[in-house]
Formats: sequence, structure tokens, C-alpha cells
Amino acid sequence: MAQLQQVIWQQLTADQQRQLLARPAQAQSAELLSQVQAIIDAVANDGDAAVLKYTQQFDCPSLTELRYDEAAIAAQAALVEPQVKAAIDTAYQTIYAFHQAQQPQAVTVTTAPGVSCTQQYHALEAVGLYIPGGTAVLPSTALMLGVPAQLANNPRRVLVSPPDRNGQLSPALMYVAQKCGITEVYRCGGAQAIAALALGTESMAPVAKIFGPGNSYVTAAKQLVAQIPGGPAIDMPAGPSELLVIADDSANSAFVAADLLSQAEHGADSQVILLTPSAQLLEQVTLALSEQLEQLPRADIARRALAGSALIQVSDLAEAIAISQQYAPEHLSVQLDSAEDYLAQLTHAGSIFVGHYTPESGGDYATGTNHVLPTYGFARNYSSLGLLDFYRRYTIQRVSQAGLAGLANAIIDLAETEGLSAHARAVSIRLEQSV
Amino acid sequence: MAQLQQVIWQQLTADQQRQLLARPAQAQSAELLSQVQAIIDAVANDGDAAVLKYTQQFDCPSLTELRYDEAAIAAQAALVEPQVKAAIDTAYQTIYAFHQAQQPQAVTVTTAPGVSCTQQYHALEAVGLYIPGGTAVLPSTALMLGVPAQLANNPRRVLVSPPDRNGQLSPALMYVAQKCGITEVYRCGGAQAIAALALGTESMAPVAKIFGPGNSYVTAAKQLVAQIPGGPAIDMPAGPSELLVIADDSANSAFVAADLLSQAEHGADSQVILLTPSAQLLEQVTLALSEQLEQLPRADIARRALAGSALIQVSDLAEAIAISQQYAPEHLSVQLDSAEDYLAQLTHAGSIFVGHYTPESGGDYATGTNHVLPTYGFARNYSSLGLLDFYRRYTIQRVSQAGLAGLANAIIDLAETEGLSAHARAVSIRLEQSV
Repeated sequence: MAQLQQVIWQQLTADQQRQLLARPAQAQSAELLSQVQAIIDAVANDGDAAVLKYTQQFDCPSLTELRYDEAAIAAQAALVEPQVKAAIDTAYQTIYAFHQAQQPQAVTVTTAPGVSCTQQYHALEAVGLYIPGGTAVLPSTALMLGVPAQLANNPRRVLVSPPDRNGQLSPALMYVAQKCGITEVYRCGGAQAIAALALGTESMAPVAKIFGPGNSYVTAAKQLVAQIPGGPAIDMPAGPSELLVIADDSANSAFVAADLLSQAEHGADSQVILLTPSAQLLEQVTLALSEQLEQLPRADIARRALAGSALIQVSDLAEAIAISQQYAPEHLSVQLDSAEDYLAQLTHAGSIFVGHYTPESGGDYATGTNHVLPTYGFARNYSSLGLLDFYRRYTIQRVSQAGLAGLANAIIDLAETEGLSAHARAVSIRLEQSV
Repeated sequence: MAQLQQVIWQQLTADQQRQLLARPAQAQSAELLSQVQAIIDAVANDGDAAVLKYTQQFDCPSLTELRYDEAAIAAQAALVEPQVKAAIDTAYQTIYAFHQAQQPQAVTVTTAPGVSCTQQYHALEAVGLYIPGGTAVLPSTALMLGVPAQLANNPRRVLVSPPDRNGQLSPALMYVAQKCGITEVYRCGGAQAIAALALGTESMAPVAKIFGPGNSYVTAAKQLVAQIPGGPAIDMPAGPSELLVIADDSANSAFVAADLLSQAEHGADSQVILLTPSAQLLEQVTLALSEQLEQLPRADIARRALAGSALIQVSDLAEAIAISQQYAPEHLSVQLDSAEDYLAQLTHAGSIFVGHYTPESGGDYATGTNHVLPTYGFARNYSSLGLLDFYRRYTIQRVSQAGLAGLANAIIDLAETEGLSAHARAVSIRLEQSV
């Protein structure tokens, strides 16, 4: 715990303050990008054969078939433990309820006599849902992507995830896939899975948008395929996970420490920050972190994450809010009796956890909010994942003959101002002639 | 007109069909990207001095100050011609009405007893609005970006546009800026303006998101700055403009030709496509194109655009719809008496123009819809610009002590399934202790 920094904000120089809140550098080396580009090119040229080759190499040497058929999905889903099934059912229900309330409505406005404009929503035809694999099993991410896709009713809901050494996907994951009405499941991961979703192969038609978190290969692949002209959209830029806690003397230091550790155990590049005006709480949290760390199976990972993190004593809550707004955390926990008083000022965050009994891990699994969130400072300008991300918006206009006459001068004069005579002509010709 | 292709869809091979609908290649050469990266690096290093140097080089040799102050804005705005002013006022009104109806609402749901989740909208703190310059004056684009920014009430609404040789921005543009309550105006364009918006300079704080169309330098710069970790968001990927018209014998061939030409005059890389089951209409449109081309000031540009375009005879309207859905046009004009019958099937488009009296140029200026639209096939997976693009969404959850007890099993069991004990611990510790 020697490296966990405890600082007093006002005793730092501006440079030190900036460095303290700097995000861990991301491993987006030129070498990584060129490795990933080579994988994408291989999938573009060799399709399924390339995806299968990489999957055999990285995940399951004996795999011969990428597609997981309905019988296999059902067989695995049936093996889910009752306790896990019940937990998934509860989470499904809250996530479903919260996202269902986000259903968009078409908007129609008569903007001028005889002129009607509509904004319409259309569910994307095909969405690709990437679920990371490896040692971990992540049914929660499948819920966060699968439930909104089900609510949007995207015709193709394609789940990809790397198989285990036996070529299987976990019972929990397949139970979620079944529950969310996933229409296609493929056993592949990494950059090769992203390439297949983006470009299509013999067995997999391409998708319109790719969702989901992943390792640095997956992240780089998403970034690269999103730049293909006419290529897929992606959900948001990725980065390591992070939590900022604002707490005062009303907080329980053991709760605060437990939350910081729950974030720290995600990965060595996770970042956790405590902002508190209370020197006493800061000391208590430090102590609690030491105690709780001892009991953690993933203590090593958490310890490394804490080394890049900081406990910061601020002058007052106003200063804490200013720092939080500048940092723009993915997860923001506000453990104050007076939390509600400050929420209107706390707008730069992916998801906010209010009060003493709202642990960040609640939102990871079961409060109902989505856990796919902007990180790395992107909570300043990117949205948290929601139902709208599974739709696209487009517009429709209907102008009557009289409506066009009413707008004609405005269109013609603006077109002439911009030097676009044919634009004007398309109106004037309609005033001179009828159908 | 020799090059304008007239074809019968069913007489083409699949390869020929694909080639006919291929988009013109985009000039995103490695050389262009490295030129643009050099400009971004110069702005990163030298700030205003670099932006000023490029602006002097490309736009106005005598410029010494990037910021356009309020007095200059007001002086220019006062010079707007009454007719243009009236046209802007009309367009402002329709665009305002349509976008105002898109105001988002927060959503709050009790997802379980004692568990409340909210989806909240927050206007982006700072938006950068890029208005192309050069020979053309584009007050319409300023309206399309400025009105939604005004409605979202983004605190900083920053307009950038290249000045003329005298260092001025046009009266029409400044009248729009005033009307939309633009808070800052800078006289710069090209990649240097995008770099300044993204990175900030001494005189310009960085923005959270950059909007607006531009030439290949601007497009490349937007693409590059969007990949900076923690960098700005951008509105959408760019591409040349395009129009697809579906028409039958009920259409007026002169109207159809006028619409095709209004798109073709935008640029030599514009693409226009007619789909009709009527051989007679196809011939009449060909004739009308020849006649109308003669009268166009920008006939040369239009002629070159038409060379990359096609008039396609289809077997029936069902075939036209299938082709349109595959092509996913930016602008889709449906000139059929029975247009309404087909709208539910026409979902892949940026903006749809229904019936015989809704010219595409109406939407460019004054129906009220936004003319910033996905092109290059991106109308399959990206949204047309709307008010929501000036906000970000984030979530808030509030869990009571009893609420947490209710969700505890689900969170703990999912956390343990995923091997994340500290996540479980953050819940169990709250069941064992109170604040």
C-alpha cells in the first residue's frame, strides 16, 4: 500500500494536480494497430477460415464450426445453476424495466402551412454484441447489450464470444442469450470476431453496429473497422474502468473502501479516486483498504490499480465537485447525507451512485442502469449506453403544393445566396408546372 | 451527357449492379492524412500562432486576430440584405419548430422496491460549429447547427469559418450567428480550425464535440482528432452528397430532372440515382436533364456528377425499394402518387422527401429538417443530425437500505459467478453494517 497516494489538493501545484488526475496511458501502440490490421485483412481475404484459424490458436484448438447452433445453446442454457439463474432473472427484470422506459417516440411537427416534418426511429437491422471471455464469464455484459437489443427488436442480434478450451460458451451466458432472444451466436473473440462482424464472412453476415467492451485487441479492432468507408458504427470509445467517490464525515469508511476495491479489482489499469474534505475519513478509508485487501482473491490486481490511484483531501465539497466535473469519471459515487443537494452540479459522469446504500457494484449488475459507460474522460462528451443506441433517427418531410408556394421565396433566396441555382430551379419549376 | 448511364437493372450481372451503386472513392490518401496530422501537431505546439499562419496562407494574408468580436459580428449582421434576412427568418422558424419538438425528457423508473433509476440529459458544455467558406457563403449550414445548439442551450456555442480575403465573414452568416446566440466566432477554417476546436489555443478553449461538413482536409482532421484519447466527439463520418429518386408514371419528369440536378450541382463527386419502373419516364427525365443543364451556371460540376450517376429502370416498385434500402441514400425522394404506401419499407435514408411537391432543396433550407445527414451508405447505421446530438445521456441510481437488501442476492451471485469478490463484498458489508 506504500504507493497509494494521499494528498491535500491545495498543497499541489497545478502540474501536480493535472498529473494526479491523468489517466493511465493506453496501450494503443503502432505495433498493436498493425497486428490488428493484419488480422482484419486476413478475415477480409479468407473469411471463416481466418476466424477459425485464430480461434483455434487462441481459444480452442479443436473447434471446427464457429456458429453455435440452437441445440447447443439450449443444452448449455439448461445447465445454468438455479442460483445464478435467479440472479440473472432479477437483473434482467430491472434492466428491462429501465430500458423499456427509454423507448423513443416519433415526432411530427407542422412547421409551416402545408409543411409537415417527422423524426422517425428505426431499429438497426443487425447489431453485433461482443462479450469478452477468457478466464472470466460475463453474463452481466450480455444482459446489458442483449436486453436493449431485445427491446429495440433489432431483427438480427448477433452475439460473439470466445469459447473455452472445449469449444463451449458458459451456461450463464447462453441462458442470457436465450432470454434476450439472441438470433445468432458465434464462438469467436478478439480482433478476428470484430472483423467478422464488420466485414462478414461466409457464415456471418455483417452487422450495422458493434457493441461491447474488450481487451486492447478488441478495442483497436473496433476503432479500425469504424473508419472503413460505409463500415459499422461502434458504441463508444473504450478505456480502462474508473470510479470517483465523493464522501464526507457522514460516510462509512468501510463502505467507501469496499467500493474503491470493487473498482480496483477490475484490472491493474483501473483508477479509483476518493475526494473528501474530512482528514479523518481519509485516514479511516486508508485503514479499511488495508484490512479489506487482505481478504480479496484478486488483491494483487487491486493493489496495482491502487498504485495509480489517489485519496485526495479537498478544502470543501465545492472543490470536490469541481475536480469531479473536470475528471469526468465513468462511475461517480456520492456518499454524503446531503448527496441530493449536489446532483444538479454533477453532470460529467457515466453513471452516478447516490447515497450510502448504492454501491457501484449494484449498477454493474442489477439496479437496472447500463454498465457500458464512457470512460477515460469521455463522460464529458459521450453518452452512457441506452436503448436509443440500438436505433437510428431519420427524417421525413411532406410538402403540399400550397406549402411549397409558401416556402418558395425562402428556399429560392437562400439557394441564390449560396450560388446554387439548380436548388432554386427545383422549386420554381414546381410553381410553374403541375404534376 | 454521353456518360450518364441508363440501365435496366435486371439485365445487369450482380457485379455490374454492385459497381453501379458503388460510391465514388474518397480521397483519404495516406498523404492527405499525414499533411493534416502535421497541421494538427503545429496547432498543438504553437496554438494561435499556427492557426493564424495557416489562415494567412489560405484565406486572408493580413489577418492578425482570429476572434471576431461582437462589434464586428453586429456590423456585418447589419449589412444583410432584407430579402436574405427574410429568407433566414423563415428557415429559422421552421428549423426551430421541428428541433424544439425533439427536446428530450429525463426518465425515472422504480426498477425494484427501493431502487430508482434515472436517465438524465445534459447539454454539452461546449460545441464547435464548423461552417465551410471559400467561394460559397453557407448561412443554411449555420442555421442547421446553430438552431439546435441554441435549443439545447449549450453554454459555449463556438462558430468557426474561414474569412474572405479581407478578413470578414459574410453578413448572412453573421446574421445567423446573432440569431442563434452563438457565443464565440473565430475566423479560421480547414484542418487548423478543427485542431483548434479539439485541442484549444490561447484564445480558444477546446470544445466537447465538433459539428459540420467540410472539404477533405476538414473531414480528415475531424477523423483524426476524434481518435485522441479524451478528445472531442464528432457529429458523424462524412462523404460526398447524394440523392436517390424513386418515381413512376405519376411523376413530372421536369421535377425529377430538376431534383437530380440540384444534387448534382453540389460537387463533381455528388451521386444521383433514379429508380423507375417506367421506360417512358426514364426517357423524359433524360431529355429534361439535357434541357435544364443548358441553363445552369454550375453545369460543368453537374455534368461531372452525372457521369458517376445512373438512371435505372426497375421491374417494379418493390425492386426499387430493395435497391434503395441497400444503397441507403442520404436524400431519398419518393415521387409517386402512392408514396405513402411505401414509406414503412423505406427506412435506410438520411431524409425522405415525400410526393411531387417536396423538392430535396426544400430540406436543404427551409422545411425544418436538418440537412446534416449521413451519406456514403452510413444512412444504414448513423442518425441524421438532431437536437439529441447536442446533449449527452447519463444515468443516476438511488438505492435505499431495504432496496439493497432486496437486490443483494442477485448482485452477490452474479459477482461471484464473474469471479469479482470485491463487487460482492461492497454489498455484503452494507448488509452487515449501517452508516
